[in-house]
Amino acid sequence: MIEVDIPLLNKEAGEKAEKYIATLTKPLGSLGRLEDIAIHLAEMTGNLTLGITPPGIIVFAADHGVAKEGVSAFPQEVTIQMVSNIVQGGAAISVFGRQIGATFKAVDVGVDGDVTEEKVIHRKIRKGTGNFLNELAMTKAEAEKAILIGYEEAIQFIEKGVKCLIVGEVGIGNTTSSSAVLAAITGADPATIVGLGSGISIEQHKRKIKVVRDAISLHKPNSADAIDILSKVGGLEMAAMAGAMLAAAEKRVPILLDGFICSVSACLAKLIAPTVADYMILSHESVEPGHQTAIKYLQKKSLVQLNMRLGEGSGAAVAYPILQSAVHMINEMATFESARVAGKEETETPVNQ
Amino acid sequence: MIEVDIPLLNKEAGEKAEKYIATLTKPLGSLGRLEDIAIHLAEMTGNLTLGITPPGIIVFAADHGVAKEGVSAFPQEVTIQMVSNIVQGGAAISVFGRQIGATFKAVDVGVDGDVTEEKVIHRKIRKGTGNFLNELAMTKAEAEKAILIGYEEAIQFIEKGVKCLIVGEVGIGNTTSSSAVLAAITGADPATIVGLGSGISIEQHKRKIKVVRDAISLHKPNSADAIDILSKVGGLEMAAMAGAMLAAAEKRVPILLDGFICSVSACLAKLIAPTVADYMILSHESVEPGHQTAIKYLQKKSLVQLNMRLGEGSGAAVAYPILQSAVHMINEMATFESARVAGKEETETPVNQ
Repeated sequence: MIEVDIPLLNKEAGEKAEKYIATLTKPLGSLGRLEDIAIHLAEMTGNLTLGITPPGIIVFAADHGVAKEGVSAFPQEVTIQMVSNIVQGGAAISVFGRQIGATFKAVDVGVDGDVTEEKVIHRKIRKGTGNFLNELAMTKAEAEKAILIGYEEAIQFIEKGVKCLIVGEVGIGNTTSSSAVLAAITGADPATIVGLGSGISIEQHKRKIKVVRDAISLHKPNSADAIDILSKVGGLEMAAMAGAMLAAAEKRVPILLDGFICSVSACLAKLIAPTVADYMILSHESVEPGHQTAIKYLQKKSLVQLNMRLGEGSGAAVAYPILQSAVHMINEMATFESARVAGKEETETPVNQ
Repeated sequence: MIEVDIPLLNKEAGEKAEKYIATLTKPLGSLGRLEDIAIHLAEMTGNLTLGITPPGIIVFAADHGVAKEGVSAFPQEVTIQMVSNIVQGGAAISVFGRQIGATFKAVDVGVDGDVTEEKVIHRKIRKGTGNFLNELAMTKAEAEKAILIGYEEAIQFIEKGVKCLIVGEVGIGNTTSSSAVLAAITGADPATIVGLGSGISIEQHKRKIKVVRDAISLHKPNSADAIDILSKVGGLEMAAMAGAMLAAAEKRVPILLDGFICSVSACLAKLIAPTVADYMILSHESVEPGHQTAIKYLQKKSLVQLNMRLGEGSGAAVAYPILQSAVHMINEMATFESARVAGKEETETPVNQ
C-alpha cells in the first residue's frame, strides 16, 4: 500500500498572510472568500508570496464494466473517442485548460480499447473494470497500482513546475461507479446519491439506483478501506485521481477539486490519508445530487455554482481564475502605507500600524 | 435629457447559438450557466462567433456631501487618495483589471479636491455632491451632465475596441447615497437596504439608516424619475455609471455588473431606458443587504457569491473569466461530428444531426 507523508498546514504562514491582507488598500475583509483562499494557499504552500502558476491538469481515462447495464446515456466507445478529442484540443477541458495556461496531460489507466493517440500517456492497467454488478471491479493489486500511477504522474508534473493540481476524468459509466463508492464510504442511500449522469432517462435512472444498491449488497465494501471499496465497485481513473491528490498534498501543492467524480475520488484519498483534504479547494457544485454528499464528507465549500455537470476537470478549470485573483490580491495590491491612503476613522493612524 | 436607442436582443442569434451548443462534445446542457451566458451574449452581440475581449473598465470617482454625517468608516480624503492608488496600479480593481487584460480608465466626475494625477480623465462637474440631509445632492442639469459624461466615456471606450463593459466607482459615502437611491426607486424600507459599507459601527449603522430615511422624507423623490432621484439623493459617479451602461447597451456591448453601487446605478439606467437591462449580466452578490433589493429589481442572477463588498468594479473583474469560458466553449469546442464522437444511445445518429 502507498505510504504518503503529508505535511501539516503551515498555520504561521496563514497568520502572516491574514495580517498582511489587513494592510491592503480596501475595507477590512471586503474581498471575502478571496481573502480566505489566500490565507489557505499560504497555509498550504508555506509561503506568503504565493505562486499557483502554472496549474497542471491531469485527465485519467478508464472504462467501466458496469456500463454494460445501460446506466449511461452514451455508448462505451465514447470514452476512447473523448480521449482523442481531449488530446486534440476539442473537449471542454482542453478549451478551459488553454484559457488558464495549464500544463496538460491525459493518462490511459484503463480504457477498453487500443488508444493510439501518441499524445496520451499509456499506463493501461486493464481494459476497463469488471462489471461490479456480478464480479469485482478490479483486484486489490490493480487498485493499488492505479493509485500509484496517479501518484507518480502527479509527482512528475510537480517536478516539472506545476503549482496547482486539477485532476479530471473521462470514462463512460463513471458516475455509477462514483455513486457506489460514495454509498460505500458514507452509507448514504443510493437513491439520494445517484443522478442523471450524462443525461439518462427516468427508467435508466431507476436501473442505475438498483445497480448501485445491488452492488453494495453483493460486495459489502468496508467503508473504512479505500482499496477494498475500489476493488469492489471503483474505477481505475478514480484510483489514479486519488493517488494524484495524495502526491500533491505531500508536495504542498494545492488541489482544485472538480465536481462529482473528482470529489468522490477525493473522499477515497481522504480515507487513505485524512489530512490530504487540508490541501483541497472545491471549485464548483455539480448538478449531480451525490456531489452534496461528497462535499459534506470533505467539509468543503464551493467557489462557484454554475449548474455544471460535465466532468473532465472542467469546473475546476473554469473556477481557477478566482484562485489567481486571490494570489494577485496578496502579491500586487498596495498597502495603506505604500499608497499613502488614510485608514479607518476610529484609528487615528492607518489600520496597518 | 439623454436619448438612447437600445436595439432589441437578437433572439435569432440566441437560438442559433443554442442549437450549435447542442452539437458540442459534451452531454446536453452539462455546462449549465456557461451555456446560458453564451446564448445571452449571442443575443446581445448578434453574433454566434462571440467576442468579449478586451473588456473595458471605467472607474468613476466622486465625493458625497452626506459623508459629513459620519456614515462611512473612512475619512472623505480617502476618495482622492484611492483615485491615485487606482491609476498607480495598487487598488483591487487595478490588480484584477491587469489579470483580465482590461483596457482601463478612471474618470473624476466630482471628487472634492484637486486630482493632480495625469492618468485620470478630468471631467469634474462639481466638488462633491451637496449633503442631501439638508440640501439637494446636485441640480438636475448636473445629474444630466454626469449621465452624459458617462455615456461619452463609454462610447469612446467602445470605439477604441472595448467589447465588454465593467463600470466601477470610488467615493466615500456612496453606499449611503446608493441606499437612498434604491429606497427611492423601490420604496423599500431603508432599514432593509442600509448595510455596513466599508465597515461602520452599530451606532454609525443606525445613523446611516436615519440619514437615508430623513433624506427620503425631506426630498420625496419621484420613484419613476431617475434625474429627480439623482438630483435629490444621488451621486455624480452613479449618474455617470448609468450613462456608461446606456452607451454600452446602445452599442450592443455586454455590461458586466459589479456589486451594490454598480447595481443601483443599473437600476437608475433601467428607469431611464428599461431595455438597458437586457444587456446586463450580474457578476456577484455583495454582502451589502441592499444588493438583494437591487438584484430583484433588475431580475438578474449572479455568477458567483464570494462574500465580496469592495466596489470599484472588483467583483465584476473577478467574475469576467467565467464569461471568457462561455465564449471559448462556443468558439473552440469540437462538435460530435468534427471530433467523430458518438452521440447519445437513444438516437441512433449523433445528437447534432
